[in-house]
Amino acid sequence: MLRHCRRLYLCHIRPLVSFRSLSSASPLYKRITQANAEVLFAELPPSLPPLESRQAASGSMVLDTVREYTKKYPLCVLLIQVGDFYELYESHATHYAAQLDLKLTKKDMATGVTVDFAGFPLRSLDRYLDMLVNRLGCRVALCEQHGTATRDDGSVMGKRRRVTRIITPGTVIEERFLDAISSNYLLAVLPSTTFGKKNDDDDNDDDYEVGLAWIDLSVGEFVLQQSRLQAFKDDVARIRPREVILPTWMKPRTGGGGGGGGDSHPIMQSLGQDPSIAITYQGDATFDSQKGHELLESIISTPDATKQDDVDHSFEKEEEAVLSDGLDVAAAVALLHYIDSTHMGERPRLQRPVRFSPEAMLRIDSAAMGSLELVRSLKDGRRADSLLGTIDCTITSAGSRLLTTWLTSPLTSMGRINTRLDIVDFFASEPNILGSIRRTLHLSTDAQRALQRLAVRRGQRSDLVEISSTFEAIRSLQHQMASVFSAQPLGRYTSAVKKLFKTLDPHQDLVDFIQSAVNPDWIPDKERERAYGYVNRNFNPELKKLHRRLDQLESERDRITSELKAMCGNSVNLVSQGPYKHIVELNASQAAKLTSVYSCTLVNKTKSKHRYQTDFWTPLSVQIETHQNLLVEMERQVFEQVVQRVLDHSSTVLDSCKSMAQLDVLTSFAWLSRERRYVRPTLSLANQTTIVGGRHPVVEAHLARKGREFVKNDLNLGQDQSVWLLTGPNMGGKSTFLRQNAVIVLLAHIGCFVPAKYADIGITDRIFSRVGASDNLAQDQSTFMVEMVETATILQQATARSMVIMDEVGRGTSTTDGFSLAYAILYDLCSRIGCRTLFATHYHELARELDNKEHSAFDKIKCFMTSLHESEDGSFIFLHHVQPGVCTQSHGLKVAQLAGLPPSVVHMAQGMWAHLNQTGSMSPKPYSIYSKQKDDHEKDVFI
Amino acid sequence: MLRHCRRLYLCHIRPLVSFRSLSSASPLYKRITQANAEVLFAELPPSLPPLESRQAASGSMVLDTVREYTKKYPLCVLLIQVGDFYELYESHATHYAAQLDLKLTKKDMATGVTVDFAGFPLRSLDRYLDMLVNRLGCRVALCEQHGTATRDDGSVMGKRRRVTRIITPGTVIEERFLDAISSNYLLAVLPSTTFGKKNDDDDNDDDYEVGLAWIDLSVGEFVLQQSRLQAFKDDVARIRPREVILPTWMKPRTGGGGGGGGDSHPIMQSLGQDPSIAITYQGDATFDSQKGHELLESIISTPDATKQDDVDHSFEKEEEAVLSDGLDVAAAVALLHYIDSTHMGERPRLQRPVRFSPEAMLRIDSAAMGSLELVRSLKDGRRADSLLGTIDCTITSAGSRLLTTWLTSPLTSMGRINTRLDIVDFFASEPNILGSIRRTLHLSTDAQRALQRLAVRRGQRSDLVEISSTFEAIRSLQHQMASVFSAQPLGRYTSAVKKLFKTLDPHQDLVDFIQSAVNPDWIPDKERERAYGYVNRNFNPELKKLHRRLDQLESERDRITSELKAMCGNSVNLVSQGPYKHIVELNASQAAKLTSVYSCTLVNKTKSKHRYQTDFWTPLSVQIETHQNLLVEMERQVFEQVVQRVLDHSSTVLDSCKSMAQLDVLTSFAWLSRERRYVRPTLSLANQTTIVGGRHPVVEAHLARKGREFVKNDLNLGQDQSVWLLTGPNMGGKSTFLRQNAVIVLLAHIGCFVPAKYADIGITDRIFSRVGASDNLAQDQSTFMVEMVETATILQQATARSMVIMDEVGRGTSTTDGFSLAYAILYDLCSRIGCRTLFATHYHELARELDNKEHSAFDKIKCFMTSLHESEDGSFIFLHHVQPGVCTQSHGLKVAQLAGLPPSVVHMAQGMWAHLNQTGSMSPKPYSIYSKQKDDHEKDVFI
Repeated sequence: MLRHCRRLYLCHIRPLVSFRSLSSASPLYKRITQANAEVLFAELPPSLPPLESRQAASGSMVLDTVREYTKKYPLCVLLIQVGDFYELYESHATHYAAQLDLKLTKKDMATGVTVDFAGFPLRSLDRYLDMLVNRLGCRVALCEQHGTATRDDGSVMGKRRRVTRIITPGTVIEERFLDAISSNYLLAVLPSTTFGKKNDDDDNDDDYEVGLAWIDLSVGEFVLQQSRLQAFKDDVARIRPREVILPTWMKPRTGGGGGGGGDSHPIMQSLGQDPSIAITYQGDATFDSQKGHELLESIISTPDATKQDDVDHSFEKEEEAVLSDGLDVAAAVALLHYIDSTHMGERPRLQRPVRFSPEAMLRIDSAAMGSLELVRSLKDGRRADSLLGTIDCTITSAGSRLLTTWLTSPLTSMGRINTRLDIVDFFASEPNILGSIRRTLHLSTDAQRALQRLAVRRGQRSDLVEISSTFEAIRSLQHQMASVFSAQPLGRYTSAVKKLFKTLDPHQDLVDFIQSAVNPDWIPDKERERAYGYVNRNFNPELKKLHRRLDQLESERDRITSELKAMCGNSVNLVSQGPYKHIVELNASQAAKLTSVYSCTLVNKTKSKHRYQTDFWTPLSVQIETHQNLLVEMERQVFEQVVQRVLDHSSTVLDSCKSMAQLDVLTSFAWLSRERRYVRPTLSLANQTTIVGGRHPVVEAHLARKGREFVKNDLNLGQDQSVWLLTGPNMGGKSTFLRQNAVIVLLAHIGCFVPAKYADIGITDRIFSRVGASDNLAQDQSTFMVEMVETATILQQATARSMVIMDEVGRGTSTTDGFSLAYAILYDLCSRIGCRTLFATHYHELARELDNKEHSAFDKIKCFMTSLHESEDGSFIFLHHVQPGVCTQSHGLKVAQLAGLPPSVVHMAQGMWAHLNQTGSMSPKPYSIYSKQKDDHEKDVFI
Repeated sequence: MLRHCRRLYLCHIRPLVSFRSLSSASPLYKRITQANAEVLFAELPPSLPPLESRQAASGSMVLDTVREYTKKYPLCVLLIQVGDFYELYESHATHYAAQLDLKLTKKDMATGVTVDFAGFPLRSLDRYLDMLVNRLGCRVALCEQHGTATRDDGSVMGKRRRVTRIITPGTVIEERFLDAISSNYLLAVLPSTTFGKKNDDDDNDDDYEVGLAWIDLSVGEFVLQQSRLQAFKDDVARIRPREVILPTWMKPRTGGGGGGGGDSHPIMQSLGQDPSIAITYQGDATFDSQKGHELLESIISTPDATKQDDVDHSFEKEEEAVLSDGLDVAAAVALLHYIDSTHMGERPRLQRPVRFSPEAMLRIDSAAMGSLELVRSLKDGRRADSLLGTIDCTITSAGSRLLTTWLTSPLTSMGRINTRLDIVDFFASEPNILGSIRRTLHLSTDAQRALQRLAVRRGQRSDLVEISSTFEAIRSLQHQMASVFSAQPLGRYTSAVKKLFKTLDPHQDLVDFIQSAVNPDWIPDKERERAYGYVNRNFNPELKKLHRRLDQLESERDRITSELKAMCGNSVNLVSQGPYKHIVELNASQAAKLTSVYSCTLVNKTKSKHRYQTDFWTPLSVQIETHQNLLVEMERQVFEQVVQRVLDHSSTVLDSCKSMAQLDVLTSFAWLSRERRYVRPTLSLANQTTIVGGRHPVVEAHLARKGREFVKNDLNLGQDQSVWLLTGPNMGGKSTFLRQNAVIVLLAHIGCFVPAKYADIGITDRIFSRVGASDNLAQDQSTFMVEMVETATILQQATARSMVIMDEVGRGTSTTDGFSLAYAILYDLCSRIGCRTLFATHYHELARELDNKEHSAFDKIKCFMTSLHESEDGSFIFLHHVQPGVCTQSHGLKVAQLAGLPPSVVHMAQGMWAHLNQTGSMSPKPYSIYSKQKDDHEKDVFI
């Protein structure tokens, strides 16, 4: 019977706690000297001569290149350009052809050398990169042609090729791969190496330090954080990285002897749960805060010539990171190393690193992040149905990204929250100004990402236009506000608004320069093969000269055209484009007039048209084409020059963009408060939360779409009533009430107005939520296990300043078990922790047990309920109103009837129900606590 | 107190049942005459002259075009080509610029006419179409330039533009928008119009007929089904359409007086739950089976000249649709109308419509489809973790798509299932043949979709190559099997395999023709601007002549080159490409040698190089370019000719592709059986299911990855024991056991071997599953409500031949309620329905109640349990073995301890638990049924 039992079970079902079975890791200096067998980039011997000059080892230069780079980038899929195609060879072809839906075939590379092969045209690169990088989570090495390799005697040997870019999920900056409204974070993680050593010390594993550093390359955002193992799961849920870099020593040992192997490392377990995160290992030596100081400093300190140090460039000053010897700095160094390796020297601009202080943030644990549906819905993971989707009324993409950051990292500093609220308040009370600001915001574009594209030389003309239009929007905003600030009597919150606007710099000189160079409205004419005219012709003398020469050639063409038309009629056409170009074309009937006078070479003859090369037009036409090509090239150079000027100002440009995003989010809050009747919350340091007429923003929005009204409810949690025990029928709105209060507390902490009539919110350090039921068969976790793991986390981590919502804890097991656990958990919450708690349950019998005089801690628990109204005719209505008392009936049978259960089944269930209540064998008689509690509470709940 | 109650509640929480409040719909003839205000295509007065010839109304031709087409296609986003850009104007720009992350700006169109505007370059079209169509679910009208509009005097007025394509989620056929391994279905739905009329008749609403017709345009698959309202939700879950077409009369009346408005229509409710489905309304008149016959016939009956009628072209003959007057035919007509409108006359090839008979299929209700994780996982919707992802070992994309269809539409015909099993059996017992077949399948490509792209004139050269390589693979397969069939003594299942191979036609003539025309290995040289050489030069005389002339010109060039080199040294270069083209280039030091002899025009001079036009090279170079252009054009014509030949054979080509996909799926099953020890199930018509040593394929695969073994379990459900009541501790493996048996039954019905030692499966008509807990706050459904709605569906629809799994029904409410309901539901299942049922519960007290002698029906229920082994030292192990008996303890407290609940909390819970068990106030003393039941069952469970 015991043959099949699973002895390994225990260490798998306790992801963050039971880690003591792991062997202790080796110390740092030892790890660095280990061979980096599994790193992204293998170093080749530097003495190796360039490929072109060597004898082809396989008989094929392409195949040699493939094999060399495959060795150099062992973790990458190598795409090699051969003419108009990108191709995969050997194992890459075998493995990825099917996944990319490409044809896998064999190719003869040289005598006797036949290899697996697959390929696709150059123009499809985006599609396949998207599949490889975004869908399959691969790293891709792009090996492109550059020029021709020749032998010593000058004869052509083949194309030169080199890897120009490594593309990984976290390092893409091309807008076509990125979601405009989400950040794309690359995260480096370095846990303390002393981890797992103190085998004797029982419960301290969770306290080991973890260094974090993350970057959004698409905008250059760069953040460090010194965290702890215990918080790592929540950190990942907050940051939501696309790719994570870990030191090689953390790589799971495959096969591995004893103790569960490397993938039991708690960090690996937290990461492993989200398949959308790509994991890359990098040599341990790159995680080195010692040697990294210079690197970090050199990268970061590229001060702008124009930056005036006495001006606050950012409205919400972030704490700049101190470059100490911490794990986070080591992680940052590894991150930079990785970016340099993948971007092959074209390093994207980075902002100065800031430090993320968890202490300054309201922490939301990963379970709450999910069950409160902050950024995506539980049902199908959609953003639209989440809290974010409901309150996101920002206008710019940068605003949308900033709102996401704010929502997942709410503040705990009353001062900073009130500054945000002041600004929201100002705009909410000035609808005309608000409207005008929001209209102007429409004119700005995603300048942050445009700047980054320019920085890595993958920018386009439109990126310059985007930057200049954003700053024109800023100028317009400044103009509007200047008149507001001067004309009106200074309002109550004007100073906060002024401070914000001070950080918006319109960069007038830069914009003037861009506009002097380029014509933003220019659209290339598709009919013209060569696209020039984008740069103003007077921008520099060479350009002017070239234009003048081209004008001359073109007027020469016009002169010849008129002469010929006079001679041979209107059908004459001097053709300079198309399949027959540089020729004179005219009606067949007129041809003789031309050929009799000039020397003509017939190129093509149809019934109606004759086409000739002539010595007066063919050379001239070729010359015109040449000058057009030269103009295109010169305009490219001017473009580079303008880009360089923009990059010289990148730091202040980014600062202004950030402030713009802040303005966008804050005005969107103001708009929300007007459109949806949100009110300004009052914040306090008291351990108290009072909400009058609260609503759930997402549910309210859904109901509104159906023309129905949301039932408002009040909440009053505080020192003397820290726990509300909520009972009520199914479908009575308990879950909605729980979540709406957590959401309102959260919104208050990001500086947003809240959906209520009145709200007084005590600053909260953490929000926890134990809601819903889901199992994870593949991870071997039953519904009840998931429930208990989440509950354990709450009891371990909640403080007196936390807020906890728990919905039907204990329902995944037998009644006795569940009831006993609920009782003990409630006791712990109110006696030991004392956090503000909303606890919904179907165990109405709990209320009676809480009357137990032995445990005076239970005095802090107050009972509330929702109920059901039955009419005399037997119909009934759910009352979603929360009121003091205990609801002793869950009315499950009524819901079952509503749901369409056959009448005979409902009837039988009623019989059994009556029987049970009579005999009391399953459940005691309802306990009539209602009338007693009612008087106790009604007076202190409603303010 | 009643002020806020929700009176509309009742009709919202009972989606499929309570529809009687809707007003009755108007009859068909009336609907047709209604104005089609909301249809996709508005008809313009035919008398209107073409735009170009009219006076520009707004002063701008572009704007006039925009406004006209916006009126004509009111539901589409209009993208209009202007030069190198696609642009959005007016309301389209205002609304979509932000969503597409484009800059919204103003554009002066004419004097005094300034409109909102946004645009993007032509080359980015794919990206924006993907966002609009796939992400936002929009329909897009693509308005492109075609030539120049001139006035009567011949002067140029502007570009002509017309809408060339409507792109909707269900009508895209471009591979870059489609997922290779999923079908892309467009579904038309027409419910009976008598619906809602019989207000008196109580429970018959669900029996109204619904006509369905769906098409996967990317392969031409075309299916009709006559369904019923009751089954509609399951139909949608099975078909998983990307876009649904409905008649306009179903459009919800916004605002709408009384009764909940149009979106209460059960069909709208079923569709509304999946946001990934785009919904389009089309004029009621297009849903007309009367006028549609000719249309349908004309479209479908394009018989192949080559089709031999005595050959079975499809291995699994599908029932061809009879074109009656049914609702499904009307839906099909509407579908064709829609496709014609969106594809602007370039109609994709369609296969003959087949009829889907639900009676021939094992129906899987939508809840089971989800909870069994057939095609995507519950947790994050990923395919990889689903059953499909686990058993999909097909090699071709078409095979993957077919497997998805099979998995969602299992068979109920023993004959057809056994034919599939025979073929799997054959290959499973011949590993060498299996390996060789599967290697050959690697050579085939997605010819079905290639053919469709060619049919709508959006094909490329690679599509021809794909088709020809697929048929080469078929030829190779035939060759391999011919020797197998001849050499071996005929095996047991050879005849089924032979029948399948008979339907694989290698189309030798067609392949020969393609190969005579094109060179499949040709790769364009990127250095050459004009890409020709793709067609064999001897394919036709004109081509041969043109090549010969070009050869002459090129040898003339070579002659001149040698002469010049002799005269001016090796630096001389005759340039025909690049910015300076058609010129002679040579070292500055040698220039005098050239200019002294020939008349030269200096074009460009650098320090090292001089570049000249000359009359001996410039005209010749231009001529070479001209001939190259002509070759490109002629090769294009040959391509068209070959494509036409392929399309002439499209029907038989598609048939062979289908058989190829069947071969792929069946050999993948054989591979599964060898790799994962799956066995052939025995099928019978008895109401009996016996499984020995069953495993869950997905969980087993997960455990295998961790090096752990899955605990096998047996099942024996039949006439005398139709219900297994399963109790056991949390984490004991109950849920896994339930689901694995449903999955094994399902796999047997698609003709796949199953993960077990032995399986005898009685043909099953439906599989139901009530598992897991999730609420839907936005839809106003609590966890318990969802549970009860799903249970009601089971009790209403299950038959004696169905299989039902239910996991912890009743846990979302109070104990008394849940217990009573579970009891009544169990009774209904075994007394009235008698279906095979697995019922897992924590209410172990149920076992005692079932002993009730009044209800002899309960005799059919047998009790089974999983348990937990406690060692003397207090440690414990979960035994995942299912054995007869009742487990009276859920061991919730042990799980809580494992999960890391603080010891003090666990201790307190234990105290309460002991107290409850002593006093019996919550739960009676454990009922010792174990020893009694053990003897009853052990003998009949294990065969």
